[in-house]
Amino acid sequence: MKITLAQLNPTIGDIQGNLRKALGAFRRAAGAGSDLVVLSELFLSGYPARDLLERPDFIDRIEAALEQVRQASAALPQTGILIGAPVRSGRATGRGLYNAALLMSAGRLLFAQHKSLLPNYDVFDEARYFDPAEEVAAVAFKGERLGIVICEDSWTDPELHRGRAYSVDPVARLAAAGATLFINLSASPYQAGKEEQRLGILRSHARAYRVPAIMVNQVGGNDELVFDGRSACMGVNAEPLAVLEAFREQELTVAIGAQSTGRAEAFIPREGVADLYDALVLGLGDYARKCGFQRAVLGLSGGIDSALVCCLAAAALGPDNVLGVLMPSRYSSAGSIDDSVALAGNLGVAHTIIPIMPVYDAFAEALAPGFKGRQPDITEENIQARIRGTLLMSLSNKFGHLLLATGNKSEMAVGYCTLYGDMCGGLAVISDVPKTMVYELARFINRGTAVIPENILTKAPSAELRPDQTDQDSLPPYDVLDGILEGYIDRACSMRELLSMGFDPETVRWVVRAIDRNEYKRRQAAPGLKVTSKAFGMGRRMAIAARYDQDTAPADPADGKDNNGT
Amino acid sequence: MKITLAQLNPTIGDIQGNLRKALGAFRRAAGAGSDLVVLSELFLSGYPARDLLERPDFIDRIEAALEQVRQASAALPQTGILIGAPVRSGRATGRGLYNAALLMSAGRLLFAQHKSLLPNYDVFDEARYFDPAEEVAAVAFKGERLGIVICEDSWTDPELHRGRAYSVDPVARLAAAGATLFINLSASPYQAGKEEQRLGILRSHARAYRVPAIMVNQVGGNDELVFDGRSACMGVNAEPLAVLEAFREQELTVAIGAQSTGRAEAFIPREGVADLYDALVLGLGDYARKCGFQRAVLGLSGGIDSALVCCLAAAALGPDNVLGVLMPSRYSSAGSIDDSVALAGNLGVAHTIIPIMPVYDAFAEALAPGFKGRQPDITEENIQARIRGTLLMSLSNKFGHLLLATGNKSEMAVGYCTLYGDMCGGLAVISDVPKTMVYELARFINRGTAVIPENILTKAPSAELRPDQTDQDSLPPYDVLDGILEGYIDRACSMRELLSMGFDPETVRWVVRAIDRNEYKRRQAAPGLKVTSKAFGMGRRMAIAARYDQDTAPADPADGKDNNGT
Repeated sequence: MKITLAQLNPTIGDIQGNLRKALGAFRRAAGAGSDLVVLSELFLSGYPARDLLERPDFIDRIEAALEQVRQASAALPQTGILIGAPVRSGRATGRGLYNAALLMSAGRLLFAQHKSLLPNYDVFDEARYFDPAEEVAAVAFKGERLGIVICEDSWTDPELHRGRAYSVDPVARLAAAGATLFINLSASPYQAGKEEQRLGILRSHARAYRVPAIMVNQVGGNDELVFDGRSACMGVNAEPLAVLEAFREQELTVAIGAQSTGRAEAFIPREGVADLYDALVLGLGDYARKCGFQRAVLGLSGGIDSALVCCLAAAALGPDNVLGVLMPSRYSSAGSIDDSVALAGNLGVAHTIIPIMPVYDAFAEALAPGFKGRQPDITEENIQARIRGTLLMSLSNKFGHLLLATGNKSEMAVGYCTLYGDMCGGLAVISDVPKTMVYELARFINRGTAVIPENILTKAPSAELRPDQTDQDSLPPYDVLDGILEGYIDRACSMRELLSMGFDPETVRWVVRAIDRNEYKRRQAAPGLKVTSKAFGMGRRMAIAARYDQDTAPADPADGKDNNGT
Repeated sequence: MKITLAQLNPTIGDIQGNLRKALGAFRRAAGAGSDLVVLSELFLSGYPARDLLERPDFIDRIEAALEQVRQASAALPQTGILIGAPVRSGRATGRGLYNAALLMSAGRLLFAQHKSLLPNYDVFDEARYFDPAEEVAAVAFKGERLGIVICEDSWTDPELHRGRAYSVDPVARLAAAGATLFINLSASPYQAGKEEQRLGILRSHARAYRVPAIMVNQVGGNDELVFDGRSACMGVNAEPLAVLEAFREQELTVAIGAQSTGRAEAFIPREGVADLYDALVLGLGDYARKCGFQRAVLGLSGGIDSALVCCLAAAALGPDNVLGVLMPSRYSSAGSIDDSVALAGNLGVAHTIIPIMPVYDAFAEALAPGFKGRQPDITEENIQARIRGTLLMSLSNKFGHLLLATGNKSEMAVGYCTLYGDMCGGLAVISDVPKTMVYELARFINRGTAVIPENILTKAPSAELRPDQTDQDSLPPYDVLDGILEGYIDRACSMRELLSMGFDPETVRWVVRAIDRNEYKRRQAAPGLKVTSKAFGMGRRMAIAARYDQDTAPADPADGKDNNGT
């Protein structure tokens, strides 16, 4: 049997555009003599379509598009199409929709398999929209018995869920029902190391049931989520016949039968940092394109974060479409300006320089009567950051550029950033990249030639908002900070567990408290590209007006929720 | 049987504080000879505790607090306590927690009823954390058979859920199990008209099963949600024995038995606008208090929105704790300044005046080289709003005031507001209040004496960001706009349905497109107090990089996602 894996990049809500993509792949597959083309989960709506799924008119339009798929399949009756879409359940109870995989052939809907396991954790909200499948069944198609599942349906190993199990195993049921080929339609977002998990799942199912397994995954960026593709066919020897490209659309037709075997060389593992780089470039590029932006603007501070984001933007949009803005103050070092100019030159990115001190002085004068008798503090540092934010937004407004925020995860975590200042932007490109990974990415970019000036990599990080400031005046060393963050945020460790890892108690207490207290800033942050197992944003839902941790000292009302930043 | 309804205001995550409140109510109830004190749903964690529920150490601390409750009940054995808390399921499958009501008496856990129906729509995410109850059962206690349910368990009427039904009815099962008294522990947030729904549910259960029904609801503000209390006891004649106060803590002991009857006069309906006012005052006050703020600052533009928020802040925090800031530009009318000064005077609120033109001129000069040859446009209007935002944040930073954003729902919907400008603030007090309701509230406040100067109520709304500007240069009349918003947002109406209501097609298209295009602004908005059936924020989850509506013209990439605002 010849099967075409159509690993494509849908746009949320763009039913007609997604339909065109699906039908294009179908026609090409038919032209190549394929028996079946497989698209990814919820392809017609795009994943995740979120509350669009609650609009009856949206589901009406999905139904109209499915009718067009059916008609297309009538015109090319030798090739089937298996496509993901939301469908009405027709029941008076429950949410009223299924997350469905629909098999059409020769003008008929042959079979619909609904998703059994609806992820409703982290970034996933599927129980908000969908009812679970009532049953699973294998379907006869062109001499095979297809066992069709959807994404989470295959993720039943408790090790994938911190030891928690599902009470049903759809793949096991399909194996018992005599499936000769497993096909999984997925929308499984990238995070570091996940491609090994996905392949491991396919391997274990192929091995356990001696049945080949296909997985077609979505590719592309949709707001916070970046889907990495890497669709695959796994042979009964638990080695892949094929693994599709990462972070790119691809259509591949494979011949596969009940006894097909693969070989280890079909999967070429990549360096983790290369994946991370590609994920950020695709996430940034798709966010811009799907929002209708061609060009981006960002502030270049002379630091490594903005240098990295500038490189990512140049890669995603082309250097001609990126504008770097230098906004020196009296605390900016000459080195910072030179380094930024050199970076822009190396990348072929345009830059402009707008000194901020005249504006700052005007603010200082406006505020002088009210601030009389008060010492300078973090307020004055925030004003500088907010002037820069306003200047960048002015360029964005005047010229239609997408403003990119450049803060990293470590500073977002502890609030070492200014709300309405350096946090301004339509997308926070690296807000899920801890500072230690920022350095790794920069070294990766510089692996051939030094695109990022060496000085940017080696100098002590500084916000340059007061004389001789460095990040380490305010923060623990970044390797320590990132270790605590990973424990507290990604693994939900308690204070006691963090201390048992050998971190200094005072440092742990400070970091945990800083994370909890800065929820209000993150609530107003731009969407950021999720690349770790736990990102701030839709996958981490925390109250603001709260007392988060009883092990830390009780909040002092006087500094309980200031609006301070860098 | 004497039952004490303890309608209290917990703080999210403050387990020890919530425990103290619960034990205080328990001891007072015991002192009054009560047989049972009832607290609200998930009282120990506060509702909604969101992802705190995913932290094992948080559940450990809940367990420790429950042990303290048990010990307290041993000391006062004549009085039972029924309290809501998350408890571990002890099962390897599912999410691992139940939303539980725990009945303790004389040092023993007599009974635990888990919640059967887990709301997972709008602002509710309970399927993210909890597994549904395995069973429901009545429990014998002091001569009655208690039928205990939790919030949604009673909300089984399909009319409450757009016609969709649940497949189980916990109250019916408890009635069949011989319950002689229904007790519902709730955390049911306020929205206009909901108190009638809640009472209606109690009435229908009391009437259908000839069993009295008690409901104890949470009170207080937690971020976006305001819980209005209004706990109640319903007699078997479907009339209330008692309805507790709205928007205030109250403990009330009632004598209730299997045949208790109530009387209609026990429920005193209030004006809707009075409820709305109280909800906003409580939500604002609790947000400030629970975040540790005593004082608030806000900009006074001379318009009705900021005037209303100033009144709400003065009521919530006391006039001495509110600072109004006037920031006139060359486009500000003399009337606006006089009206704001008069408002502050009427309220007894301090005010200060900071003219923005010197700062604006400094920005204009800084941007002049880059903007050469370009005409003034919305960019320059946004700069004025962002200067004001920065000035207000500077006062917030320097003096520790909570900044209140003053935008209403109508402008948030269509993006008639400036990101990082007038959208700045820790709380967006009226961002779920449509402009037409803003006027209603203002008239309500002025019902005795004209606190808000009449001129503010009668003049044409204007952003005053360019000469002779009024809102109606850019927007449809507010009654039309609010009507379309209600249809599109609250009721998910299609374009066709909106047109069938008689709205002008061009206006509908413009409004719908403006709503869809401005998702990026709302994503970065401060939390706003939810008072309608569908608020922006956690209850409305929309993608940004998307094409939302196929009935409107396809998005023009050139203006597809600008960063424009007022």
